[in-house]
Amino acid sequence: MQQIWLSLLSGLCLCLCLVFFCDAEEGLEFPNFDGKDRVLDVNERNYKKALKRYDLLCLFYHEPLPTNKGLQKQFQMTELVLELTAQVLENRDIGFGMVDSHKDAKVAKKLGLEEVGSLYVFKDDRVIEFDGQLSADTLVEFLLDVLEDPVEMINNAMEVRAFERMEEDIRLIGYFKGEDSYFRAFQEASERFQPYIKFFATFDKSVAKHLSLKMNEVDFYEPFMEEPAVLPGRPLSEMDIVEFVTQHRRATLRKLRAENMFETWEDDMDGIHIVAFAEEEDPDGYEFLEILKDVARDNTNNPELSIVWIDPDDFPLLTTYWEKTFKLDLFRPQIGIVNVTDADSVWLDMSNDEDLPTAEELEDWIEDVLSGRVNTEDDDESPDNQESEDSNDMDDDDGSHDRDDDDESDE
Amino acid sequence: MQQIWLSLLSGLCLCLCLVFFCDAEEGLEFPNFDGKDRVLDVNERNYKKALKRYDLLCLFYHEPLPTNKGLQKQFQMTELVLELTAQVLENRDIGFGMVDSHKDAKVAKKLGLEEVGSLYVFKDDRVIEFDGQLSADTLVEFLLDVLEDPVEMINNAMEVRAFERMEEDIRLIGYFKGEDSYFRAFQEASERFQPYIKFFATFDKSVAKHLSLKMNEVDFYEPFMEEPAVLPGRPLSEMDIVEFVTQHRRATLRKLRAENMFETWEDDMDGIHIVAFAEEEDPDGYEFLEILKDVARDNTNNPELSIVWIDPDDFPLLTTYWEKTFKLDLFRPQIGIVNVTDADSVWLDMSNDEDLPTAEELEDWIEDVLSGRVNTEDDDESPDNQESEDSNDMDDDDGSHDRDDDDESDE
Repeated sequence: MQQIWLSLLSGLCLCLCLVFFCDAEEGLEFPNFDGKDRVLDVNERNYKKALKRYDLLCLFYHEPLPTNKGLQKQFQMTELVLELTAQVLENRDIGFGMVDSHKDAKVAKKLGLEEVGSLYVFKDDRVIEFDGQLSADTLVEFLLDVLEDPVEMINNAMEVRAFERMEEDIRLIGYFKGEDSYFRAFQEASERFQPYIKFFATFDKSVAKHLSLKMNEVDFYEPFMEEPAVLPGRPLSEMDIVEFVTQHRRATLRKLRAENMFETWEDDMDGIHIVAFAEEEDPDGYEFLEILKDVARDNTNNPELSIVWIDPDDFPLLTTYWEKTFKLDLFRPQIGIVNVTDADSVWLDMSNDEDLPTAEELEDWIEDVLSGRVNTEDDDESPDNQESEDSNDMDDDDGSHDRDDDDESDE
Repeated sequence: MQQIWLSLLSGLCLCLCLVFFCDAEEGLEFPNFDGKDRVLDVNERNYKKALKRYDLLCLFYHEPLPTNKGLQKQFQMTELVLELTAQVLENRDIGFGMVDSHKDAKVAKKLGLEEVGSLYVFKDDRVIEFDGQLSADTLVEFLLDVLEDPVEMINNAMEVRAFERMEEDIRLIGYFKGEDSYFRAFQEASERFQPYIKFFATFDKSVAKHLSLKMNEVDFYEPFMEEPAVLPGRPLSEMDIVEFVTQHRRATLRKLRAENMFETWEDDMDGIHIVAFAEEEDPDGYEFLEILKDVARDNTNNPELSIVWIDPDDFPLLTTYWEKTFKLDLFRPQIGIVNVTDADSVWLDMSNDEDLPTAEELEDWIEDVLSGRVNTEDDDESPDNQESEDSNDMDDDDGSHDRDDDDESDE
């Protein structure tokens, strides 16, 4: 099926990272797409065979081929991303296929595919949904993570340090006697969340002691929290663990990641997100992030609060889009609320001060957001508001500045 | 000039990160190439005007358009990367252009362009060479870094913590009274190394005290070293600083980064690199990296030693290429020597042990490498070696395992 576009695009190699080599040095050669057709057109006749044949089967669930030429080329680029990924991972026993939501509706139903535009990964009897940035490098990294063991062992003090440094991730760690039935229950639970939530285990007494883990205890570390939550009950069944994780997986402060960015964005709070931009590598950004962590720690038990932290360094191509859409300067840290249906937004005014807000000031502002006193609708375009925009006292009082119907040009 | 390929490729948007949106949520839209021609065809008539017109001018210095069709499309993809970058950064006052090494030889000479395949950035009276991964996201991030102030101020304890955490970077920090002539000399020096080497300054007494900085002192932090080197002499001229940095910029342990990966690779040590693969996010990888840091700290004064650390997570598309080329399992940490002319390599055998080597064991092996006892040539294909490969005692003795003429299949 890919013959049509392959003839058009073959040689359009290096799609993501085109490099001209100008010297004889070797060792850093990015893959070129070789034009070989590796992505299957999955249908009722071949899907069972494909499921059996590979360790992993990745199916991209898509709308029918559009008639619009621009959209067609876009579609072909998705296929190219999948082809390049398939080529790069050729020796890993991973199958790739496309499922048409119209033509292959029956297969989709049988396989439980629901969200058009998502990629579904079949591993043993599980299905993992990928709803992230569909670029070859993000996808390759994701699939390599899926191939790893779902439970990572922590054997010594140095590995404990590595574990403790992963504060951005949701992590679980269990202490077990060995590969017994309790460990296996933990393992089974881990498979349900791989690779999004990290599971660790130790059989080592001194590691357990260092982490204050009792035998058969499982601890849950929310991102950026210093103290873990202990899962109630010991020993734990697979379902005990699954239920606890499902209930607690939306963190008070969560980092936006390429691998599940759209899933995170869809998990909004009543149609809005509290979004914080902070570049961790920048001293200002680092400082602001530390303040955010304090706020998150103070409010970890508030189920109403979840702040999405975006490090602009992770999304260079989106940085200027965000600056335009939200009318922001992303060289500085920012925090605001974004309405996910229209991208209307209100941002905390931090431009007047040399200093960043304190954790207390930030908490006051967040309280105003959660109570609805600060929101994206108050000054939306209406004859009244348009005329009195400059004298909108509330905005000044709460230190917020709406960026939606602002007329300043960003050219 | 781009009309030909634009008609072919227009709509081939989302070149790097193609995403199908399937719901109404807004706020994460990756840019599509809009087909507008922004990259200049630079020649003798227009180059001076272009230099004057923009804050930054980025010129891609390239070989003439190839006749081979595959290479032509590759060339068009480079143009597309530049066009998408230009579009994303449209409101930043950055110009983009192409300089043909044959047709525009005179302009290239006048501008001092030397390396075909490099991108040259003109900022004020300086030229910055970009010799990294030519993808839109790497390029956008690089240019945003070039736009920032070359000296970042450190004003308080939290910012000192941010500074101290950047152990992967070469950093300089100076303590000055204020924006005096010594500070300006520091600033001038910083511009020569932006954005590759980070310059920080403080006017704050308590920050200076914390970092043991005397007035007008400049300290140089080599990556991963705990103690900085103090630049000799106080106050320092621009040239004092430039000379010191130039002399010390090749670190004992340096991380491979997309933004200057080819430059780093070209800076080999007599045709070889000592390469260490370690995934920092993985407990094993973290542990190995800590051992490498110990080795680097012990050998910081050895100008013969420079280890290139590669985190496979940073280069998903190269991971399987490296595994094939070097016949390695990159799910585990690895260290070896690579001959950069033919990618022939020898790797330290760490497969038999559960434990990683100690810093001492690693130093013994590195000593063998530096003395030539371990090298990539000893068992290269020659009739003798091919026959006696299995009984090559030396390889076993030094714990190394050559991966070049190994016959094992990786299919």
